[in-house]
Amino acid sequence: MTLAGHHLFGTSSTSERFVIIGADAAGMSAASEARRVDPDLEIIAYDRGDFASYSQCGLPYLIGGLVEDRQQLIARTVDEFAQRGITVRLGHEVVAVDPSRKAIRVRNLARGEEFEQRYDRLLIATGAAPVRLPIPGLYLDGVFHLDVMEDAIAIQHYLRMHRPKHAVIVGGGYIGLEMAENLVRLGLTVHVVQRNQQLFPSVDVEIATSLSGELERHGVDISLRDGVVEACEGHGGRVVDVHTNRGEVPADLVVVATGVRPAVALAVEAGIAVGVTGAIAVDRQLRTSVPDIFAAGDCAEHWHRLLQRPTWLPLGTTANKQGRVAGRNAAGGDAAFTGIVGTAITRVFDLQVARTGLTEREAAAAGLAAHAMVIRSTDHAGYLPDAQELIVKVVAEVGSGRLLGGQAVGRAGADKRIDVLATALYADLTLDDVTQLDLAYAPPFNSVWDPVQVAATALLRRTGGSS
Amino acid sequence: MTLAGHHLFGTSSTSERFVIIGADAAGMSAASEARRVDPDLEIIAYDRGDFASYSQCGLPYLIGGLVEDRQQLIARTVDEFAQRGITVRLGHEVVAVDPSRKAIRVRNLARGEEFEQRYDRLLIATGAAPVRLPIPGLYLDGVFHLDVMEDAIAIQHYLRMHRPKHAVIVGGGYIGLEMAENLVRLGLTVHVVQRNQQLFPSVDVEIATSLSGELERHGVDISLRDGVVEACEGHGGRVVDVHTNRGEVPADLVVVATGVRPAVALAVEAGIAVGVTGAIAVDRQLRTSVPDIFAAGDCAEHWHRLLQRPTWLPLGTTANKQGRVAGRNAAGGDAAFTGIVGTAITRVFDLQVARTGLTEREAAAAGLAAHAMVIRSTDHAGYLPDAQELIVKVVAEVGSGRLLGGQAVGRAGADKRIDVLATALYADLTLDDVTQLDLAYAPPFNSVWDPVQVAATALLRRTGGSS
Repeated sequence: MTLAGHHLFGTSSTSERFVIIGADAAGMSAASEARRVDPDLEIIAYDRGDFASYSQCGLPYLIGGLVEDRQQLIARTVDEFAQRGITVRLGHEVVAVDPSRKAIRVRNLARGEEFEQRYDRLLIATGAAPVRLPIPGLYLDGVFHLDVMEDAIAIQHYLRMHRPKHAVIVGGGYIGLEMAENLVRLGLTVHVVQRNQQLFPSVDVEIATSLSGELERHGVDISLRDGVVEACEGHGGRVVDVHTNRGEVPADLVVVATGVRPAVALAVEAGIAVGVTGAIAVDRQLRTSVPDIFAAGDCAEHWHRLLQRPTWLPLGTTANKQGRVAGRNAAGGDAAFTGIVGTAITRVFDLQVARTGLTEREAAAAGLAAHAMVIRSTDHAGYLPDAQELIVKVVAEVGSGRLLGGQAVGRAGADKRIDVLATALYADLTLDDVTQLDLAYAPPFNSVWDPVQVAATALLRRTGGSS
Repeated sequence: MTLAGHHLFGTSSTSERFVIIGADAAGMSAASEARRVDPDLEIIAYDRGDFASYSQCGLPYLIGGLVEDRQQLIARTVDEFAQRGITVRLGHEVVAVDPSRKAIRVRNLARGEEFEQRYDRLLIATGAAPVRLPIPGLYLDGVFHLDVMEDAIAIQHYLRMHRPKHAVIVGGGYIGLEMAENLVRLGLTVHVVQRNQQLFPSVDVEIATSLSGELERHGVDISLRDGVVEACEGHGGRVVDVHTNRGEVPADLVVVATGVRPAVALAVEAGIAVGVTGAIAVDRQLRTSVPDIFAAGDCAEHWHRLLQRPTWLPLGTTANKQGRVAGRNAAGGDAAFTGIVGTAITRVFDLQVARTGLTEREAAAAGLAAHAMVIRSTDHAGYLPDAQELIVKVVAEVGSGRLLGGQAVGRAGADKRIDVLATALYADLTLDDVTQLDLAYAPPFNSVWDPVQVAATALLRRTGGSS
């Protein structure tokens, strides 16, 4: 099927070519899986950045010094990919996709030259990009987003050069709170400015309140229902303070973490359909609306098993899973992405906060009749000296008893409970099923009824269900 | 239905009477659930011991001093039960059940008197009792089993009075290893004698070997394929050493932990059917072969979801679940025990070891065509400084890819992986499903692919399945 003339970088004159735009989680998972399926496939990945296949989620810990060397964040090097016959070209930005000619236009950023690359199958894995707020002063030196490795390196460089003392973090979501922790670790004072009425809107308010306490215990100032209106310039073009709706806050470092958007410009210009979520529409095989073009990861939509419709929840886990499916299919295999249930977790200082499925708010927004129960328990047997408080919330559908979601917060064991509930959600279990799960019990690990079972039982009893 | 004359202890002349033999996990869960279903039911529980409703699994930690006061192990006191209209009569041994007259014969152990107690519904929750080995010297002072609270108190008393220095533990299962840890904590030298060729036969040998290393690091001697042939008397009728097949071991404290058997004598004498497992046969509603008599907990059989047949795996979690079901049904409600999947866990010093489903050995014994994969990973992102090695094994059915079991060992996170797999087993998921689970990821909690997903993927790849 492939013409010999296409083989600019190929090693075989009979193989087909799989081209990947974006060499991070989704792109490189796809490359590896495609290689497994077809040893002869020509595989080329382009990325405009200088780093491929690294843990974006590890960046706050690199900045905070918990990760000593950025090389530790790199899962596989370009050389390691090359050894598996996968070509990774960093510093190469794809500027156009032409489906009619099955070609992309690539710019070598170092040389400023452009060239054409033909493909048989193409994967768009362009990820997501930070929302840029139209606020005066957010171009100043000392104001950062945290998206890619280059951002982390820039922040590290700024910290070393200017030794800032006062950080303002705009946004109280995952990145904002992880950066708060890591900047406190480095000795900065930290002030979080959050537009919403609660921190971490990813969980319901009963769970989020524990977070505020933990941040305050570590000296972090929090302004809720507040926003930055201007960042002001001090010496040498550097930020010196920010004006919020509430007043002036000293700030010689500002991290803007107000969310991300799917990077779909390239796809849109190529005529590839975008869904209502704003991300690239894909089917279960991760095919886009255009033949032989796949999309995966943060730029694509994510099928939600509970909502039974596409959503957009950009996460590394999902990017890896989708990349694997797209790579398999691009190489002629057959795989389907079975969907997400909406699981996420973070740690803020010593507090774990996690969620899966739908929050009560999300269930209501989806038009589901839901009820919920919050219980306070301990991560393991309360009579052992190191037991920690654990708050668990379960959300279920009225009538059917179908589990819809769970949230947990505590110093230990929140991750375990959310993973149990995430597995239960994947399998479409009910509250009654949750009470009957055969979970591992010994006093250092649990109580004889796991907190998720205590919560499920309490909700069943309140609503008259059996347990 | 109830005759007024039956109401020896009743408060209402129209209520029925639910009598329970055994006031521990199963019995008192049944009592509490029956009370919820029927506020008027007369509920009486008899137990020959002096303690009701306590955590048997906490006893090793009480002995080791991690639990300071035995009151902490008691979930609810007799007075608290009384406030809910549940009568608990401790120090009362049930010596006979007469189904034809719907009556039991009870002996007040303090007074030596017997009386008859009529019932409308009866629950047998007599638990399990340690296997008593026919070995000379096992009657000596200083030789203990660890079954009930009274045993723990006796061991505590002996430790205080005689300050033993050298302990021999016979049996390398859950209780044996938990006692090894707790006696080392108290400063004793500990020698574990195990008849089997591996410690902890509850897991496959690849997982068990980590345990031996951990015990040895803490100075515990281990003799495998060895057995005690005699315990020898020193001063004052106290044990001074034991003779094993290998030689003589000094021992001024011996704990025999060679397993338990279901306590079914009372049931058998009453003509209640016992299954092939040796435990009381029950249906899904936990009814025995005799009308109006239920059985639950360690004396009863446990439906196994994977094997689709009754098994006997005595555990507190199962006892609580079965007790709840039996209590609901005894009170006129309708509940079914949906079955176990074979989950268990223990901690030995700093090592967690856990299992769920079937081991490779158990799958083979059940005639299932199974294959398995063992992987070495870390409990969370390996680039964070506190990541710990975690070994995970998954077992699956050849052909169908149905998950059959999992095992894990490590210093952290084994419990989480086993609970995820236990939930997956409950829901009858496949290896492919496991790879698609939407588990919680952030670097302090996991890698982007959870170790159970890495193991499932590796097994799928080895066998040519898709992932």
